[in-house]
Amino acid sequence: MIHSFLMIGQSNMAGRGYAKEVPPIFDEHIKMLRNGLWQIMSEPINYDRPSSGVGLAASFAAAWRLDNTQNEIGLIPCADGGTSLDDWAVDGALFENAISQARLAQRTSEIKGILWHQGESDCSPEKAEKYQEKFSKIIETLRKELNSPKIPLIIGGLGDYLSHGIFGPYFIHYPLVNQQLEQFAQTHENCYFATAKDLTANPDGVHFNAHSQRLLGIRYYHAYRDLKNIFNPLPDEDGILENIYKRSYTKTEKIKLLEHEFAVGNIESKDYLNELKAISQE
Amino acid sequence: MIHSFLMIGQSNMAGRGYAKEVPPIFDEHIKMLRNGLWQIMSEPINYDRPSSGVGLAASFAAAWRLDNTQNEIGLIPCADGGTSLDDWAVDGALFENAISQARLAQRTSEIKGILWHQGESDCSPEKAEKYQEKFSKIIETLRKELNSPKIPLIIGGLGDYLSHGIFGPYFIHYPLVNQQLEQFAQTHENCYFATAKDLTANPDGVHFNAHSQRLLGIRYYHAYRDLKNIFNPLPDEDGILENIYKRSYTKTEKIKLLEHEFAVGNIESKDYLNELKAISQE
Repeated sequence: MIHSFLMIGQSNMAGRGYAKEVPPIFDEHIKMLRNGLWQIMSEPINYDRPSSGVGLAASFAAAWRLDNTQNEIGLIPCADGGTSLDDWAVDGALFENAISQARLAQRTSEIKGILWHQGESDCSPEKAEKYQEKFSKIIETLRKELNSPKIPLIIGGLGDYLSHGIFGPYFIHYPLVNQQLEQFAQTHENCYFATAKDLTANPDGVHFNAHSQRLLGIRYYHAYRDLKNIFNPLPDEDGILENIYKRSYTKTEKIKLLEHEFAVGNIESKDYLNELKAISQE
Repeated sequence: MIHSFLMIGQSNMAGRGYAKEVPPIFDEHIKMLRNGLWQIMSEPINYDRPSSGVGLAASFAAAWRLDNTQNEIGLIPCADGGTSLDDWAVDGALFENAISQARLAQRTSEIKGILWHQGESDCSPEKAEKYQEKFSKIIETLRKELNSPKIPLIIGGLGDYLSHGIFGPYFIHYPLVNQQLEQFAQTHENCYFATAKDLTANPDGVHFNAHSQRLLGIRYYHAYRDLKNIFNPLPDEDGILENIYKRSYTKTEKIKLLEHEFAVGNIESKDYLNELKAISQE
């Protein structure tokens, strides 16, 4: 049975890291949901916008796999860029979509956790003040709808770069949201916080860059695995990431990657057939 | 109210055309559903696989817009590559996903048609023989679930290139499927056929190339608009496509495209701000 995780929130959960900046993560035992079915995960996982890219879920899953070498993990992408907590209100389209996708996933997996990253669209004192109340209702209803009242919820902090970029003025009150997120994790059962401390952004000053997303995913995984808040960067997160990257491809993965290169026109049919033969004979 | 269309079937409905081979279609009044919400359509619309690309839905929508200059159209992508008719059976994950996405779309749009392209995965005499019976049940249930018993259904033919490529042996019986699709359209109310005659493939010999997808989308639109079967290429389809391509961008579209270039790191923040200012002053 696949261990699955629901991805909800806004753009930094969906992921906007540039794929070219980091080594890929591709593992036949890491799946993603598409149209209600599982397929091998490839990034972008959460294709909410044409700019979607590397998010935290791939390294979350890869870190999970380091500890679960015999099992499969599945990611359920439902995050949507630019959305506020109000956009996520119970019975709204985003909420209903997440429920319907989670239910499809539950046909063939067990949902083991909820991954949330959101708050950039709620960076005002008025909105921050209401964050916990609104969020609590969303999560309570979500857990009830999924028949998993105690399912762990991991929530991440907003990046400390937010107030410095060209959109900085919009995010000046981001520390208020981080306070609310930390407090929420500390005062709610089965909820854990993963810090964004020391993480850096794309040139837009809004989105975690690809490497930062990789590190954040590892922090999310440790919060999930150890059922504890991660208020500081993990001392060994770079080493864990190296371990993830140094995994070599299985035969199935090599074939899938080759098929992709042929499908998108990067190699000719003759070379495709020759390489396919070579891999099969390995 | 947005006029929306449900996209279902396998890879040639999702689209595998190479974007670099054709001019883009980008129109603020053509939307696509993401996470239950509408956003401006950009390709790939139906991101079922990392190889997904240009499909028929963009030019379908653009041709619709030539006749509906004051209205908005929305595309609901639910096609999934490599899927057989059995995979689309009622109560299966693909069917349920399509229903749930269509219902989300119905919150803010009226579903005006169903676009279907499928059959490559059913190219055997045994499967072709059962095609109409199975398909009829799927469509009947789908229309009932959407509370639209008479909603037009447009179905397209399989490409005549199928038996020639490197995967040709798998598709040798494709004419049997085309016969079934044509017959289905001729014997079922509110169902119309759009031919794939003269269309060509990517080097894989399986997927329509980008230009062919553009033409097929126009044929689908004419079948929908005129409520008739299109058994031959339209005499003026190249001219219609030229009309689509020559449309110039609105200010909103220019800004969205600029934002995208900045988001993916193609331009620096200084140039972004300068160009944004220039567009705003146009």
